[in-house]
Amino acid sequence: MAACNRAIVARMDSPVALIPQLAAHLVAAGGKRLRPLLTLASARLCGYEAGHGVPRHVNLAACVEFIHTATLLHDDVVDESQLRRGLASANAVFGNKASVLVGDFLFARSFQLMTEDGSLRVMAILSNASATIAEGEVLQMATQNDLSTPMDRYLDVIHGKTAALFAAACQVGAVVAARPQAEEQALQAYGDNLGMAFQLVDDALDYAADQGELGKTVGDDFREGKITLPVLAAYGAGDETERAFWRRVIEQSSQDETDLDHAMDLIARRGGIEITLQRARHYAHAARDALGVFPDSRLRRLMGDIALYTVSRGR
Amino acid sequence: MAACNRAIVARMDSPVALIPQLAAHLVAAGGKRLRPLLTLASARLCGYEAGHGVPRHVNLAACVEFIHTATLLHDDVVDESQLRRGLASANAVFGNKASVLVGDFLFARSFQLMTEDGSLRVMAILSNASATIAEGEVLQMATQNDLSTPMDRYLDVIHGKTAALFAAACQVGAVVAARPQAEEQALQAYGDNLGMAFQLVDDALDYAADQGELGKTVGDDFREGKITLPVLAAYGAGDETERAFWRRVIEQSSQDETDLDHAMDLIARRGGIEITLQRARHYAHAARDALGVFPDSRLRRLMGDIALYTVSRGR
Repeated sequence: MAACNRAIVARMDSPVALIPQLAAHLVAAGGKRLRPLLTLASARLCGYEAGHGVPRHVNLAACVEFIHTATLLHDDVVDESQLRRGLASANAVFGNKASVLVGDFLFARSFQLMTEDGSLRVMAILSNASATIAEGEVLQMATQNDLSTPMDRYLDVIHGKTAALFAAACQVGAVVAARPQAEEQALQAYGDNLGMAFQLVDDALDYAADQGELGKTVGDDFREGKITLPVLAAYGAGDETERAFWRRVIEQSSQDETDLDHAMDLIARRGGIEITLQRARHYAHAARDALGVFPDSRLRRLMGDIALYTVSRGR
Repeated sequence: MAACNRAIVARMDSPVALIPQLAAHLVAAGGKRLRPLLTLASARLCGYEAGHGVPRHVNLAACVEFIHTATLLHDDVVDESQLRRGLASANAVFGNKASVLVGDFLFARSFQLMTEDGSLRVMAILSNASATIAEGEVLQMATQNDLSTPMDRYLDVIHGKTAALFAAACQVGAVVAARPQAEEQALQAYGDNLGMAFQLVDDALDYAADQGELGKTVGDDFREGKITLPVLAAYGAGDETERAFWRRVIEQSSQDETDLDHAMDLIARRGGIEITLQRARHYAHAARDALGVFPDSRLRRLMGDIALYTVSRGR
């Protein structure tokens, strides 16, 4: 992971000063580096042996993090977020323009890294994931403020915006180790289910956690009128008064200061958090089970535990 | 070119409805399709013979247009432009969010097309060009409102934002035809010089043309405080009163309704348009001369004429 962090910092460099400046802001902000970690762990689970030079899985882990960072930069512009991981977001510090353009740079850089790696298979996986992410984000925008969004469309959104890159990050690890199709698919399924669980918990926490712990502004989803499972569940189970409330705050975007508290109250009363976490647990178990094709090992158990730990964030 | 247009429309498709909707808006808006045309012409000049299926140069021409369209979408967001090619810009119709995200989608889709093509050499050329474009745009942002911008930094900006993709579009044509290094370099130089000429003329027209003819809002560069050669030339040759004017309108962004006319007047008086077009002609001739390694042919003469025609737009 240290090698991966070095690769990330080294490859964010550019003669255009604003790019490394903004990159330094992002690197300093830290973040869990969960996606590159998945690439490293998957490659190791598949017994990948590095040759000379920077190992392929380290380069590709950096590449995955660049794609992720590019989407974060653009998301924060689209959502007009002021906080990211508890610090001022890049758009709040450097402006929307810089965030759009440096996002584009990081995306291009990720494809330069893939080209250096030289595997068409890896390139197919990561370019497909990139297109799916963008589709997921557009779909999320199209469902915003729309309480009639069906459950499966919500699941499409979180698959696109989160699970697709988790899946690709894991699959790429199997590809560099040149493992059979069954193992590649198993890691793809592991990542996909883990990503679904991760996003569901994130969506639950937006109506449950306190700001310090979460490192983002609680209630962001609420203020933006994002359609997430806690809201769909509370709206679906609500009486007429409750539904009128949801229509006003989500569909008409007419909110006052006390509305977030009331929304959290209604969600708690209608079991919206528990319903969301229940789903997340289902995906987390599916993630762990997908690793069953690999022989038992400390790493396999650790990766399974990560899936279950992801869900325990929601308690 | 008809085959290329078909490929562009077909590959902009997505199950997420907003993507083909916004794509249709862009396709309907037309545009010169200059960059894909360069790929097609370069491949043909190199004697490329298509095999079965969609010819490689058609697919890659579509790919080049996707990269260009993605940057246009993001540019219009960054510049807050309301017009593009004489029609309402995508961000004016669909909003900034959609433009950012559909731009990301088109960029990802271009890499999917490259992956299908399967040439690592093409991928290196186009991913390098994409990174250079983003760097050029960031550099342009960093020089905005700064009258002390040196000439060579201005040239770096227009190389990044325009010439790099022109160069890559041409070079890719030589690569698919598997031509020797000298021809690849000649086409790369042709595109690079053509792109420089093209952008210089564009920068001149922003202070000279009337809006209908140009298909964009005249004075956009002025209102945004962009540093272009007409302004640098007029500022450099201006007396103290003129320099005070430029500092107010460009550096302090303090403009009233009569300032654009006065700016155009000062630029005309100080020869700013002529100086810019002079440079453009220099690049246009270098572009034509770069084709000298190819035997004389109707197509070679046509490509040379395109370079000279580009400059004649400025008269």
